[in-house]
Amino acid sequence: MEGNSEIRPVCPLPIAQYPHVVLAHGGGGSLMHQLIESVFARRFSNPALDQRHDGALLELDGVRLAFTTDSYVVRPLFFPGGDIGTLAIYGTVNDLAMCGARPHWLSAGFIIEEGLPMETLERVATSMAQAAAETGVQLVTGDTKVVEKGKGDGLFVNTAGIGIVRHGVRLCPRMVLPGDAVLLSGDVGRHGMAIMSVREGLEFESRIVSDCAPVAHAALALVDAGIEVHCMRDLTRGGLASALNEIASTASVEIRIEEAAVPVSEPVRGACEILGFDPLYVANEGRFVAFVSARDADRALEIVRQSPQGGGACLIGQVAGAHHGIVTLRSRIGTNRILDMLSGEQLPRIC
Amino acid sequence: MEGNSEIRPVCPLPIAQYPHVVLAHGGGGSLMHQLIESVFARRFSNPALDQRHDGALLELDGVRLAFTTDSYVVRPLFFPGGDIGTLAIYGTVNDLAMCGARPHWLSAGFIIEEGLPMETLERVATSMAQAAAETGVQLVTGDTKVVEKGKGDGLFVNTAGIGIVRHGVRLCPRMVLPGDAVLLSGDVGRHGMAIMSVREGLEFESRIVSDCAPVAHAALALVDAGIEVHCMRDLTRGGLASALNEIASTASVEIRIEEAAVPVSEPVRGACEILGFDPLYVANEGRFVAFVSARDADRALEIVRQSPQGGGACLIGQVAGAHHGIVTLRSRIGTNRILDMLSGEQLPRIC
Repeated sequence: MEGNSEIRPVCPLPIAQYPHVVLAHGGGGSLMHQLIESVFARRFSNPALDQRHDGALLELDGVRLAFTTDSYVVRPLFFPGGDIGTLAIYGTVNDLAMCGARPHWLSAGFIIEEGLPMETLERVATSMAQAAAETGVQLVTGDTKVVEKGKGDGLFVNTAGIGIVRHGVRLCPRMVLPGDAVLLSGDVGRHGMAIMSVREGLEFESRIVSDCAPVAHAALALVDAGIEVHCMRDLTRGGLASALNEIASTASVEIRIEEAAVPVSEPVRGACEILGFDPLYVANEGRFVAFVSARDADRALEIVRQSPQGGGACLIGQVAGAHHGIVTLRSRIGTNRILDMLSGEQLPRIC
Repeated sequence: MEGNSEIRPVCPLPIAQYPHVVLAHGGGGSLMHQLIESVFARRFSNPALDQRHDGALLELDGVRLAFTTDSYVVRPLFFPGGDIGTLAIYGTVNDLAMCGARPHWLSAGFIIEEGLPMETLERVATSMAQAAAETGVQLVTGDTKVVEKGKGDGLFVNTAGIGIVRHGVRLCPRMVLPGDAVLLSGDVGRHGMAIMSVREGLEFESRIVSDCAPVAHAALALVDAGIEVHCMRDLTRGGLASALNEIASTASVEIRIEEAAVPVSEPVRGACEILGFDPLYVANEGRFVAFVSARDADRALEIVRQSPQGGGACLIGQVAGAHHGIVTLRSRIGTNRILDMLSGEQLPRIC
């Protein structure tokens, strides 16, 4: 990104301060962004990559494609509400939908640690097949590698996906405009706290189940209804706060959020309080934000609420004028503070 | 693949005999094929996947795409003639070319072990950028994950790729016909023995350099020249013998190879003799076989020989009648034997 004045560095620390990769470089926060910008983005720069979107938007003989990839390294492989297989399908399907694309085809790459029980692999494959059928995508190509015991961690899965973007649809962070309403599709923090509870063997008052789910139905319903959507982003590593910061930074706007408007379930709030987490930074796997024209906001809300995963949708804020990419949070007691991007690692290997 | 009489099981052993995944399940031979068929293929079955090709051939509003993926877990990350970054680009570019597709866009997913020197990651990224520029592809989307120290092995890279298939081009194993000539693009066994030499610290008389290279130029030159090509396959894990067995099995033909016609360099032959390897099973990363109509064989050979990587190309055999998918090798002394698929693991983590 050298020489591109549109992209400001997300974090002022030079990468040289990190002679080695640390866990936080994969945490979805500012350190990850710094790594991506300094190691990958400046070497691979091209118009599609430089959009900094969940997927690349490509054009070919009048056909518009979205193309995206994610590797999944979640630990444990199975958790309340899903497993690495459902994550690997829904995650990539969701990224395509965030580009306004109808998901069609997925690839799957498996890196298996020697000694993984065959039954575990079969369970994951079954989950993937079910999730693919549910979301209407086909797994059309794949690859299998095995590494020695102690050189992996059971199973890592990569999926890449191709979707079709309808004529006239153009969603990306740079389309976000002052005045846009910010819509959130449901309560936040469930995936991260569900993983946390099983990983640490914690027992909360109620069992917390991941929100892991496809959001393509809700997201594409907005597009299909002709809502003036400017950008959508699913909330994964780094949570709501990091996703909003990414968009504010790329679009060079200020995003103002009402803390009281962001739904957090009681069990998640309680678990976060006990463990010292802020639910705005906790990972989700079935939630997204949509930036829509203010005049379409109520109709957009109604559409998302009618979708399978969108019953808890609400409007949580709006986009203010150009302000060098910050997110501000108005607290329940009326004070304002800047909501930064996650600076380090809140919880590793969440997805 | 249940109920599909066209696909015969490559290996008669039931997967139930392996309660755990072993290294050979990733070795490119019959155990890997058994795993893929029994765990993945029967669950994910669809027309594109069921072609058993290096990539999926997809059609969309008259535009024909190829889509493929590979994960790279090679150890060590750097070897004579390349590194994990060049492999990750060339490997996926080559798979697209084997579908007759012109490679356009790649995704990249990185799974990094905590503690990897930042300099190592930067060297790999530089290699990838150079290899992408060399092969005319763009890295348009990516993902970065970090796992704890001891839960990975430095760096794993996944790439997926999209290419465009010209109208009228249709290459796949089932197009192979009795009478076809079998063309090999160069000498075999260099990549595997190059990896072996550095991994085990062996010193042979001459330094063996991997053949790691893009073959898209040579492969697409055949297509562009109007050669009647029926199938192409690059030779990776499992070597020439396994690639030929895959094709013979899917196409239900007998492939007859002349041992004396398969070029093996002296250093590779010497190293294989010392270590007890058969060069026909050793991995390559810049070689492919093409099945072409007999009447086009000489012209095809001339075209491949004029390409940057094809100077050592030669005709190594032909396809005989339908014979339930076997490969036979006529030795230098005139005897015939069946050349099986690699049954286990010859050398793990070669790519």
